Amino acid sequence: MNKKITSASFFIGKQSENLISFGSGQPDLPPPEICFDFLKDYKEFKYGEIQGNHALREAIAQHYPNATADDIIITNGASEGIDLALRALYEKDARILMPRPYYYSYPHNVRYAHMTCAYYNLVEGKIDLAHFTERVKTCKAVIINSPGNPTGTVQEVATLQEIEKVTQKYGVYVLSDEVYKDMIYERQNYLINGDHVITINSFSKSYSLCGARVGYIYTKDTDMRKKIIEIKTHTSMNTSIVSQEMALMATKMSQEYLDHQSTIWQKRRDLIYDEIQKLDLPVWKPEGAFYVFVTIENPQKVMEDLYYMYDMIVYNGEWFGTKNRIRLSYALDKEKIIEGMRRLKHYLENEYHT
Amino acid sequence: MNKKITSASFFIGKQSENLISFGSGQPDLPPPEICFDFLKDYKEFKYGEIQGNHALREAIAQHYPNATADDIIITNGASEGIDLALRALYEKDARILMPRPYYYSYPHNVRYAHMTCAYYNLVEGKIDLAHFTERVKTCKAVIINSPGNPTGTVQEVATLQEIEKVTQKYGVYVLSDEVYKDMIYERQNYLINGDHVITINSFSKSYSLCGARVGYIYTKDTDMRKKIIEIKTHTSMNTSIVSQEMALMATKMSQEYLDHQSTIWQKRRDLIYDEIQKLDLPVWKPEGAFYVFVTIENPQKVMEDLYYMYDMIVYNGEWFGTKNRIRLSYALDKEKIIEGMRRLKHYLENEYHT
Repeated sequence: MNKKITSASFFIGKQSENLISFGSGQPDLPPPEICFDFLKDYKEFKYGEIQGNHALREAIAQHYPNATADDIIITNGASEGIDLALRALYEKDARILMPRPYYYSYPHNVRYAHMTCAYYNLVEGKIDLAHFTERVKTCKAVIINSPGNPTGTVQEVATLQEIEKVTQKYGVYVLSDEVYKDMIYERQNYLINGDHVITINSFSKSYSLCGARVGYIYTKDTDMRKKIIEIKTHTSMNTSIVSQEMALMATKMSQEYLDHQSTIWQKRRDLIYDEIQKLDLPVWKPEGAFYVFVTIENPQKVMEDLYYMYDMIVYNGEWFGTKNRIRLSYALDKEKIIEGMRRLKHYLENEYHT
Repeated sequence: MNKKITSASFFIGKQSENLISFGSGQPDLPPPEICFDFLKDYKEFKYGEIQGNHALREAIAQHYPNATADDIIITNGASEGIDLALRALYEKDARILMPRPYYYSYPHNVRYAHMTCAYYNLVEGKIDLAHFTERVKTCKAVIINSPGNPTGTVQEVATLQEIEKVTQKYGVYVLSDEVYKDMIYERQNYLINGDHVITINSFSKSYSLCGARVGYIYTKDTDMRKKIIEIKTHTSMNTSIVSQEMALMATKMSQEYLDHQSTIWQKRRDLIYDEIQKLDLPVWKPEGAFYVFVTIENPQKVMEDLYYMYDMIVYNGEWFGTKNRIRLSYALDKEKIIEGMRRLKHYLENEYHT
């Protein structure tokens, strides 16, 4: 009797020669060499600044117009960034608006911050402004995630600009999770900004430094920053100083490096999108990040069948708040994507019945 | 006009040739060389297990009778350990009992976990069992901190054993913060244990790895562990894999290493305790950790005078919930301790008036 798979955690640490994982959002490409080179002489051990390494904050600030090192807080990955921001936003009975489908941690993050979740439904992965505007009025803050996980969609620039206005008008904070901002294939990028915008980013996706856990918060909201630093002072103190040094090295890479990485992701996107279309599974074309969000009935069974019969990991879309979908991360080399699609095809032709 | 000093954060990053800091609990002695040696070949970058590196958990488990790797969760320092444990303990209107004087983060930790603080007053740094027992009945959990910060006292073995019984009887969780367990000078050590004990420890004090932020939770309470791992999954994910590797190397040091370090702390303890007695400032003899908690009137003014006039950092005891005391960390070399005491003497003789 195979064990029921109830969350993504089930797959952590699962390894085998034959396993193909379209599961976690872990890039397979290694970080730049420069992220490791300095380690041979590394001897630091003392507490660092709670807000984060000053040189790292300065380097990050250069990527945002008008930002200074003071506007940045280094965190234990984007996860801690989101957690700290929500804890700082806490207000009794406050509601936090988020997209649906959502990144699976968001509802947990809101509940762990003792607030209530509200949702705006995406239409084919896109924000419906009328619906969004109606929903946002009664909320303390809204989470925007473009490029989106699990959708792979990128919101229109005009939409994001309208969101800046609407949230400003209603005094709603924006938590903009932009961890995939360097992986956009279909349109220009746009970083949401404003007085009450809290931007979340990380070194995990752009530089593959997932395990080092370095993320950051960027906000011009001084009060919010003070609250966040105060919370971090008591709940985790400085982010690992050696991890921060790795991130600092990553900031020395040029835009060409990021563009080159993006080209690799885009080729993989093209490949997996073509393959899935050949299988006649409805899917929208990913515009950013590295996920395809495929329509399929009975996703729990599909996920378990694929894992136990085909040694292949996909995630159930229900974990992201949507019925009848599975999420595939294509942070994999070409050969593995092709082999995975071959297995999926075989499964659909032989064992899958709706 | 000198700036008012309102919290320990004020001193972070303050440096000068002449500065003598009896402030933060940062050991001046470097970590063992072995903690850095492996870095020259280090190339890891992928997400690690949320619960923590298995080899590290196995090594830690060997320090606790009957513990296994499954009982351990690696955290971003003891700070995150306390934060996660309290969040997992959350219950509406629950009260968390803590010692007073307390480590200054505890009240914040309880509030950030949306619970209420209750206190048991220490008598000359020691737990009064009758008072403790009366207070503990109405609480969800109690924090024990032996050896204690800021008190430097170590609780009696008989007291700790009685606490095990009382908390068991009333169904109260014990959060035992044992980060100074390897620094005890006056009596045998005793690690609190029981079905609902959550032990917190870290590599920051025993191995000077403060900046790397590696702590851990050890508990036999399976439900609590599940809750903690679930929260960490969404709020920070794995602890920095490179920091964890440093900690793993530290576990390879022998007991002799820890004993040798402890001897150094003890000599410094003897020195500073003698010097303070010569100044006729009332102080109890520290039995563990590396703090002296000196009685003095007007501690806010003393702290500011010493900083602005004598380039010397001490902490106001009010931050730890006590009137008329200052805390001095003696994680400093002998010469600095002597020079600091010389400055303190000069201040007391020339500028200090009660």
